[in-house]
Amino acid sequence: MEHTVTAFENELTELTDGVIALGVLAQSQLDDALSSIFQGDAKLAQRAIKRDPALDTLAIDIERKSVRMIALRQPMADDLRRPIAAMKIAMNLERCGDLAKNVAKRTLKIGPAGAVSFAAPVERMGRLVAARLGAVLNAYGARNVTQAVDVWTQDAEIDEHYEQLFAGLLARMAEDPESITACTHLLFIAKNLERIGDHATNIAELIHYEITGVELVEDRPKFDA
Amino acid sequence: MEHTVTAFENELTELTDGVIALGVLAQSQLDDALSSIFQGDAKLAQRAIKRDPALDTLAIDIERKSVRMIALRQPMADDLRRPIAAMKIAMNLERCGDLAKNVAKRTLKIGPAGAVSFAAPVERMGRLVAARLGAVLNAYGARNVTQAVDVWTQDAEIDEHYEQLFAGLLARMAEDPESITACTHLLFIAKNLERIGDHATNIAELIHYEITGVELVEDRPKFDA
Repeated sequence: MEHTVTAFENELTELTDGVIALGVLAQSQLDDALSSIFQGDAKLAQRAIKRDPALDTLAIDIERKSVRMIALRQPMADDLRRPIAAMKIAMNLERCGDLAKNVAKRTLKIGPAGAVSFAAPVERMGRLVAARLGAVLNAYGARNVTQAVDVWTQDAEIDEHYEQLFAGLLARMAEDPESITACTHLLFIAKNLERIGDHATNIAELIHYEITGVELVEDRPKFDA
Repeated sequence: MEHTVTAFENELTELTDGVIALGVLAQSQLDDALSSIFQGDAKLAQRAIKRDPALDTLAIDIERKSVRMIALRQPMADDLRRPIAAMKIAMNLERCGDLAKNVAKRTLKIGPAGAVSFAAPVERMGRLVAARLGAVLNAYGARNVTQAVDVWTQDAEIDEHYEQLFAGLLARMAEDPESITACTHLLFIAKNLERIGDHATNIAELIHYEITGVELVEDRPKFDA
């Protein structure tokens, strides 16, 4: 059976490489979307939007390969968890790409000037989220459970940023009704970034389960204002 | 092989029944959340929130059964699409439940009086979304492609409601800065409802693919204000 085991390992490596490639695409898309907010650069926003179909295609490819592996190789226990994790991590990354696309679209709606004048704290939150996404992809590539748990634990910090930003944007709207439309788009941008952070946390949970076979417990530290 | 085919069919029926049970739970959760907005009833909102763990558990159960079927029965082509569709529809329904939970949580934040005074058009949109979710579950139970395509086509109507509501809430905030916090929660509630509508549309696409083997094309009619 050594031949079969090796073929299985080769297919797993191909699958893992695909997931990492998808993660890199999602990161680039988020990076363009964030830079478009801060620099008010419509071209970067357009580029982030145009990247999205490539992510969708890659995610579908990973899903099909995972299902085929499960059907044809009939892996059990530890081996079964790996294609399932790949498939589910791919879904989470594809959703990160969608959310980054929505951030870019809203940046275009606000317009360059509006984006620049309000957006510094939003961008800071975005950079924090991008760092978490990078860290969890590293943890996946290295099969490092400790790194994955770190990302999971740190999600509370993103929530804290989000809650502060939310309160700040509401206060701004009350002071200056002219800013309501732009601030509302920024509220949704902040929400989308928080959700990308949630996906990074989901991915951390999937890595933990893939490697250890044990679910991370539900009572993750949560910031609640 | 007749014995095996029958066992496969029995497992499929069990899986489909599980998906429908999950859909019914998601509908009840949405219904409680919507009634809590309109009646300003905190108890209904709490009930919607408390329903969520049951949905999560059922979705995980469906996923495990689907994966086991794929691994042990090695279905091909049409037969392979059925457990995959069940698994993915379950994920979409579980997300609908999360979104309904978030609607309920925001209703509690606005408070009963605030919810009632602003919420009639939000509730109307919610009832439309709930009807779509019901229709797509019927289509799944009946394996009716035409019904599924109807839901898919009608998503533009939900988008139209959402865009109008969004514009209306922004105008209200500008007129009455005191209302900004409540209106912001209502904006997110409307967004969550629109996303439940998107999940109903995704489920319609999954039903179409499961039964026909063909993807619904991307250029769904979209309302854009």
